[in-house]
Amino acid sequence: MSGTSTLSGAPECAPTDWPRIGDYLIARLKEAGVDHLFGVPGDYVLRFYDRLCRSEIRHIGTTREDTAAFAADGYARCRGLGALAVTYGVGALNVVNAVAGANAECSPVVVVSGAPGVAEQRDDPQLHHRFGPFRFQREIFERITVACAVLDDPYTALREIDRTLDAARRYSRPVYIELPRDRVDTPAFPIPRETPGWDPAADQAEGASDPEVLAEAVEETLTLLGRAQVPAILAGVEVHRRGLQDLLADFVRQARLPVAATLTGKSVVAERQPGYLGVYEGAMGPEGARAVIERADLLLLLGVTPNDIDLGINTARLDPARMVRAGQEEVWVHRHRFPRVHLRDFIAALATAVKPHPGPLPEVPGPLTAPDFPRPGAPMTMARLMARLNDFLTPDMQVVADSGDCLFAAVDLRVHERSEFLASAYYTTMGFGVPAALGAQVARPSRRPLVLVGDGAFQMTGTELSTAARLGLDPIVILCNNRGYTTERFILEGPFNDIADWRFHRLGELFGPLRGFLAPTEEAFEEALGAALAFRDGPSLIEVGLRPDDCSAALNRLGERLRAVVQDG
Amino acid sequence: MSGTSTLSGAPECAPTDWPRIGDYLIARLKEAGVDHLFGVPGDYVLRFYDRLCRSEIRHIGTTREDTAAFAADGYARCRGLGALAVTYGVGALNVVNAVAGANAECSPVVVVSGAPGVAEQRDDPQLHHRFGPFRFQREIFERITVACAVLDDPYTALREIDRTLDAARRYSRPVYIELPRDRVDTPAFPIPRETPGWDPAADQAEGASDPEVLAEAVEETLTLLGRAQVPAILAGVEVHRRGLQDLLADFVRQARLPVAATLTGKSVVAERQPGYLGVYEGAMGPEGARAVIERADLLLLLGVTPNDIDLGINTARLDPARMVRAGQEEVWVHRHRFPRVHLRDFIAALATAVKPHPGPLPEVPGPLTAPDFPRPGAPMTMARLMARLNDFLTPDMQVVADSGDCLFAAVDLRVHERSEFLASAYYTTMGFGVPAALGAQVARPSRRPLVLVGDGAFQMTGTELSTAARLGLDPIVILCNNRGYTTERFILEGPFNDIADWRFHRLGELFGPLRGFLAPTEEAFEEALGAALAFRDGPSLIEVGLRPDDCSAALNRLGERLRAVVQDG
Repeated sequence: MSGTSTLSGAPECAPTDWPRIGDYLIARLKEAGVDHLFGVPGDYVLRFYDRLCRSEIRHIGTTREDTAAFAADGYARCRGLGALAVTYGVGALNVVNAVAGANAECSPVVVVSGAPGVAEQRDDPQLHHRFGPFRFQREIFERITVACAVLDDPYTALREIDRTLDAARRYSRPVYIELPRDRVDTPAFPIPRETPGWDPAADQAEGASDPEVLAEAVEETLTLLGRAQVPAILAGVEVHRRGLQDLLADFVRQARLPVAATLTGKSVVAERQPGYLGVYEGAMGPEGARAVIERADLLLLLGVTPNDIDLGINTARLDPARMVRAGQEEVWVHRHRFPRVHLRDFIAALATAVKPHPGPLPEVPGPLTAPDFPRPGAPMTMARLMARLNDFLTPDMQVVADSGDCLFAAVDLRVHERSEFLASAYYTTMGFGVPAALGAQVARPSRRPLVLVGDGAFQMTGTELSTAARLGLDPIVILCNNRGYTTERFILEGPFNDIADWRFHRLGELFGPLRGFLAPTEEAFEEALGAALAFRDGPSLIEVGLRPDDCSAALNRLGERLRAVVQDG
Repeated sequence: MSGTSTLSGAPECAPTDWPRIGDYLIARLKEAGVDHLFGVPGDYVLRFYDRLCRSEIRHIGTTREDTAAFAADGYARCRGLGALAVTYGVGALNVVNAVAGANAECSPVVVVSGAPGVAEQRDDPQLHHRFGPFRFQREIFERITVACAVLDDPYTALREIDRTLDAARRYSRPVYIELPRDRVDTPAFPIPRETPGWDPAADQAEGASDPEVLAEAVEETLTLLGRAQVPAILAGVEVHRRGLQDLLADFVRQARLPVAATLTGKSVVAERQPGYLGVYEGAMGPEGARAVIERADLLLLLGVTPNDIDLGINTARLDPARMVRAGQEEVWVHRHRFPRVHLRDFIAALATAVKPHPGPLPEVPGPLTAPDFPRPGAPMTMARLMARLNDFLTPDMQVVADSGDCLFAAVDLRVHERSEFLASAYYTTMGFGVPAALGAQVARPSRRPLVLVGDGAFQMTGTELSTAARLGLDPIVILCNNRGYTTERFILEGPFNDIADWRFHRLGELFGPLRGFLAPTEEAFEEALGAALAFRDGPSLIEVGLRPDDCSAALNRLGERLRAVVQDG
């Protein structure tokens, strides 16, 4: 390759119409629906930031890098792709947990990391922000993303950008793009793009099922459905991540079947429609959904991932002999497997051919509500909080739950429209809520976030509300203050579960505009809720005072199980 | 190995006096001087926490995991070893940046991560907090630590604990210990310990120089010293990390030579002793030290690491032909190398044999002071702030600087005693200051931290002050509020350098006891300083209002250099 590049990496005699690497990356992100990019600047990424702020993508500065990644995750769940840009080392390594979470939760987040220039790296010098060999950062991200690229070579850079962005969308998982700072403005060889941005082999693997295998799987499933007396559907998170909610809704309507969602899949179906059972998660979930799902003589699992949370820490009682299970690229009927059948095709084929089930939809309890709220003098409890929120929620709100008891309690919430519930329900990282809600509201300004967060999680990332305040966003944060790590308390109590007392409702003293409320009683909460609803200039924060031993019904059940694992495991 | 272990990993018929893995780890940490351990609990590490809180090590709960790691880093720098314990995935991956920083900065931090039990992992299930194959977490930490161990095997667990803790101390770098939760209480085979905790081969490599090579290197160095007219010493960070400060002081006293420190090595020598030149960092540092160092006809570099910060972003002008450079395990005289000569032995031999230099010590400007402080009506500036702090500092204080301009400005501060200046001066991660000061004060309660931090860095981790407040610690935080990422502004200005306005001095509304002060003028600052000094019940925070274009002299010089690299690189 002698004579093909100069020291600075620019191919000699590059035609003037060759795109520059940084600009091409920005253009491809924009094309993929990324109108906003989150992050914190630093010297190795400043040149890219400079290009960015001359582009049509808007940069949203966050207070930390990990919150930028959580925000990009929330954005990705609403838009199909989210992105962040950070500096090398100190920036990128700060997002490892949040990106690993996006990987576990199948959220397509693009991490752009600046890096020392290719020329700067040549003699392997001790540059600031370095923590080991320069390649180690990429090697770390290889373990938490589905694809990585280092854009050091102008002859392959554009193809590498295409490849990684396509991988993010195809697998609905994060990707890592490292951009050495002396490559941002380098003209790059414009490799012709494959339309429509997917390569044919990938299409084969991803988009298209084997038609004969599909037909046989569908036929057998329909035969079983026709014979079943009390069939039911359990819908999971993959339906959401693949954008199959409309298809699923269509099938459910045609089939007239009752449907439950897993916790990680919560809100893949609208939660106030007839036949919706609620969340199923084994012995952890509400009894109504559990009875219907576990007694079904044919259970259709659509896009359900077999993780320990959704299976209620191994308390799910599901019998393969009465089950049809469709995953991303395969269908299992009882104990035999149909390979190369894609979830999208399978649901679509069922929707077309299914006959309405003749039986009545099962009667299950509807959402808990609290028509008598507020009861004078009554202290707040987790159960009453959720009941009240069920009445309060409107179709223009989306619920974002942080990890901890507020996640378990949210099982009892019923959102109005589909995909209005966001959580780190499987990876269960604390600190997800507030920053993810920032990303979600930037992505969908018409949806007002209702954020459920515990005191421990809020101490981790809650000050990111300052970015919401700066942007004039108006999330309503319900802070469940039970004074410590309550989920842990239910597993193993000790002084390590105590945390510092914060006067969370005074946060508006630190930055704003932000309105804070303290709500130890139902009356105070009711008043705060009304005031928060009316306040549109910035975030509202309602600190709900709870007893340390108050918790959701789900946590009571879960705690028992986890205690056994931790103490006897 | 059939028949050697039961499913739970406990060797069959383990004698009852075999130590349990968790208890052994705790005992070894305690023995190594770890009296406090930082961290956030989570279910995979709860069993270890349970053992911990029955031990003599005190657990210090932080608000986040990364701040626990910064605190452990600060603790390690004061005590020789620091430790934290976190849960799998969501906990451990949150400390990657802070631990990579400890690695870059050579700080011996022990990361204990809980993990799913060995039995739980067997069928490779989708457990919560999982982000990929279970081994990926260890593989990530292999890239940011000097040694890793997974304590899954009771036959090797104790030796693995010894090996990793020894490596942390020997190399003064972080290590990673993964403890599956079903191994915490498992009795383990008590492999006899090698005394004194080092293996002989390691002693050979680490402790002992080759006596003949040493003698030759020392002789040549002394000959050169004897001939030199204006010799000088430049001392670096390795002197601190190896605990050689006393040796160095001894040598400096015997030799009667002027001595400067690198920025990362700042405070390896007491900064108010005769002959101390200040910080040398090429064209970035103060002129007085630079002139003496660069004009020396023999320059002794002791424990200096050749990183870009210490070399003033390649503006250092040091001539190998006039240099003797001693690193960890080698000495270079001019352009020839003496292998197997250890820094400790080299300095010790020099101290024994050196003759006092006959020439006078060079005259360099002493610390900037501000006897006329406060000037009525004068707004605060970075330069005046440092000058005033030089008068304010007492021998019972230690300075902890966060990254950004307050780090560069701190070049002009002179601490009283050795090792009283802590910073992430090479890795330069933001958010280090407040949590590292927490660790430092827990480690040395008799030293009151004076924390220098910028507004951007404080937004990242400043709320960790709540832990200091909870523990009754009394750091004085000087928050330099110049409204944005000032270091970046000096490289490349753009809207991305603006950050949210916080009323930092109101932080005491959120938690306490904490006293906040707003100091836009010298008079207000003076008053605040007095009040902070008198307040001993919790942290004090003095928000110093600065103009966005005010900065240290060092940043002005550095910014010019960095601008060139970013824009033309």
